[in-house]
Amino acid sequence: MKRSGLITLTTDFGIRDAYVAMMKGVIFTIYPQARLVDVTHQVTPGAIAEAADLIMENFPYFPQGTVHLGVIDPGVGGERRPIALCKAGHFFVGPDNGLFGPIIEDYQSEIKVIHLTNKQYFLPRISHTFHGREIFAPVAAHIARGVEMEEMGEEIRDPEILRHRKPRLKGEALYGQIVRIDRFGNLITDIRRDALIPFTRSGMLRVQVGRVKIHGLSRTYSDKKKGDLLSLINSSDRLEIAVNGGRASERIEVNPDEVIGSMVCVRKAKRHSR
Amino acid sequence: MKRSGLITLTTDFGIRDAYVAMMKGVIFTIYPQARLVDVTHQVTPGAIAEAADLIMENFPYFPQGTVHLGVIDPGVGGERRPIALCKAGHFFVGPDNGLFGPIIEDYQSEIKVIHLTNKQYFLPRISHTFHGREIFAPVAAHIARGVEMEEMGEEIRDPEILRHRKPRLKGEALYGQIVRIDRFGNLITDIRRDALIPFTRSGMLRVQVGRVKIHGLSRTYSDKKKGDLLSLINSSDRLEIAVNGGRASERIEVNPDEVIGSMVCVRKAKRHSR
Amino acid sequence: MKRSGLITLTTDFGIRDAYVAMMKGVIFTIYPQARLVDVTHQVTPGAIAEAADLIMENFPYFPQGTVHLGVIDPGVGGERRPIALCKAGHFFVGPDNGLFGPIIEDYQSEIKVIHLTNKQYFLPRISHTFHGREIFAPVAAHIARGVEMEEMGEEIRDPEILRHRKPRLKGEALYGQIVRIDRFGNLITDIRRDALIPFTRSGMLRVQVGRVKIHGLSRTYSDKKKGDLLSLINSSDRLEIAVNGGRASERIEVNPDEVIGSMVCVRKAKRHSR
Repeated sequence: MKRSGLITLTTDFGIRDAYVAMMKGVIFTIYPQARLVDVTHQVTPGAIAEAADLIMENFPYFPQGTVHLGVIDPGVGGERRPIALCKAGHFFVGPDNGLFGPIIEDYQSEIKVIHLTNKQYFLPRISHTFHGREIFAPVAAHIARGVEMEEMGEEIRDPEILRHRKPRLKGEALYGQIVRIDRFGNLITDIRRDALIPFTRSGMLRVQVGRVKIHGLSRTYSDKKKGDLLSLINSSDRLEIAVNGGRASERIEVNPDEVIGSMVCVRKAKRHSR
Repeated sequence: MKRSGLITLTTDFGIRDAYVAMMKGVIFTIYPQARLVDVTHQVTPGAIAEAADLIMENFPYFPQGTVHLGVIDPGVGGERRPIALCKAGHFFVGPDNGLFGPIIEDYQSEIKVIHLTNKQYFLPRISHTFHGREIFAPVAAHIARGVEMEEMGEEIRDPEILRHRKPRLKGEALYGQIVRIDRFGNLITDIRRDALIPFTRSGMLRVQVGRVKIHGLSRTYSDKKKGDLLSLINSSDRLEIAVNGGRASERIEVNPDEVIGSMVCVRKAKRHSR
Repeated sequence: MKRSGLITLTTDFGIRDAYVAMMKGVIFTIYPQARLVDVTHQVTPGAIAEAADLIMENFPYFPQGTVHLGVIDPGVGGERRPIALCKAGHFFVGPDNGLFGPIIEDYQSEIKVIHLTNKQYFLPRISHTFHGREIFAPVAAHIARGVEMEEMGEEIRDPEILRHRKPRLKGEALYGQIVRIDRFGNLITDIRRDALIPFTRSGMLRVQVGRVKIHGLSRTYSDKKKGDLLSLINSSDRLEIAVNGGRASERIEVNPDEVIGSMVCVRKAKRHSR
């Protein structure tokens, strides 16, 4: 596998401390030609599923041979294994805690997962609290400069996959959930475009969250009047609930603390309704 | 026009989602040698005038041949045109919604504006909600690697210019407004250095915002005592109201929600006043 | 001294304005091959000691020959001198206000400090309010591309060192303070690993902050139960107070506004205690 020289970084380290910069210093020390792209460092602390979703959504827009470094690592210093994996032409490096679960599950292509054990590719001194700097960043840099993953440890066949509730059909309704609120207050669900085909093939669908009901799918935000709630298939092929020129997160009748994880129900709209 | 290889990015996408990273992945896929500089991704969602001001202030510090990508695009998927333009040796790419209005209006040099229509320079699949990724990022990358704008669409002569209130003289007073509050709580106005010459030529000026009056222009923040309000010509040649070691935004007697847009009045100071 | 081509940036400019981007534009204009790493731009406005701590913690992870640019400059336009210095194989550029005090004091290696006076290495026009752009960024770029510091001004022997309270032994107790709260709510103290040796050599230590007492040092966060307070030596060899899966900053019985600067006391634990 050729390398692109690119390394993406996704962490929950925030942007006030020097943690991310230290990782970049380590990377540039090992591989001065690296080119780095921050995905985000604002993942909710310890929120593995949130980061897994972002990594999954982001990686296909990068050239093959890119290394995607993910450090959401609440179990640092404990039992969880450090891993690197290769799938669909991309490399992923981070803790084996489910962060790469969706990549492992969803992409139909060969996968190889390596338990990182070869200390030759780590920093000489390993702390108990910052493996992002001492294990994951140096391993990512070595992979980006062309080292084969296979030299870095043993292949494993049981990587951690987060058990998460998936959208399911029940009678004539499809039940999913809100998995993320974006910067604009848009509600991103786990329901994908193809799961909606049975509902849109012959007529209009209806989306319900809390007590709010939205009829039909809009094509884009400005299809509705300013301030109106709408649903659409977003740029990542997910069902999204939005407000034209506003924040859907402030409009649904759900306890604000509980928006993430709240149920989204899709049905065929009854004729004559509305 | 030679290219610098640099692309700047100004958006309202925030730093929690993967939207900006996806744009960067697209750019590096098309032009691996690109060098990217984030101006900000914290523009108030949909605030075109705010971003226009930042782009205008920032671009002259970059080498000629730089591409300035701006994506504040509340009308994405609607009627507004995607454009690229070249002025003063710099390239600008984004939606035709006024974002580049000040560039178009203020710089006395030849301008060429292209309505981007040639799909060869877009991503193969265009969503209705994220043209930053599918149109503007790839076009910016292609321009940065040397493609001529003229190959990307048709020249237009009616680009959108935001109609905004401009500073105006009325009797012996100059009326402007506060257009931005910076990180330090400094109040940035739309009044430029040269507009103040008539007021400073023969004596002292007086600046009024709400009920607060400031006499004279300071040279720098520390010219006044800690905690004192002052006005000065800032590093972008604008009249700015500040507090030495404090936040002017918390000191003027104006409703906090209405600071931006509030009137700033400049007069000659009366003798004996103060 | 060979150069790495890397420049790190630490400022209090925030991420909403274009100040940082302008500095980067200036750097790339002078030295197009520069590679830039943001440490943080979220330093509390004017907080020199906070930034000094971050720069000190971060720089050793970068290759020698890197330029570390720091702009926390509340006295801009006043008397404080602009300086560049070289120590331990690294370069540092910024205002002479104590920002590099810990570097100057703590590293046992030769040091050279230059008062930057040679305007040939500045931007042609110097404002009174933004020397980061007009002096520090261009000087950093020139050093990164290989110019000798000695050509840029006169050597000085009295650089500013922040007088700060240091950890001290008093009877059988060591008194330090909390100097920073990180993204995870961890409390970073100024007590270093080696200062704790007398307390850990023969038995267990006890850490006290406010009325909270913690017995013993944990190895990593997950050594204690979820929600339990703990103390450990962190990845920067400092004593840190943390909560497994929580925020220590919300758990200590100290006025939230006064956490930074609050006293931390280390003693030998009494036998039978607990």
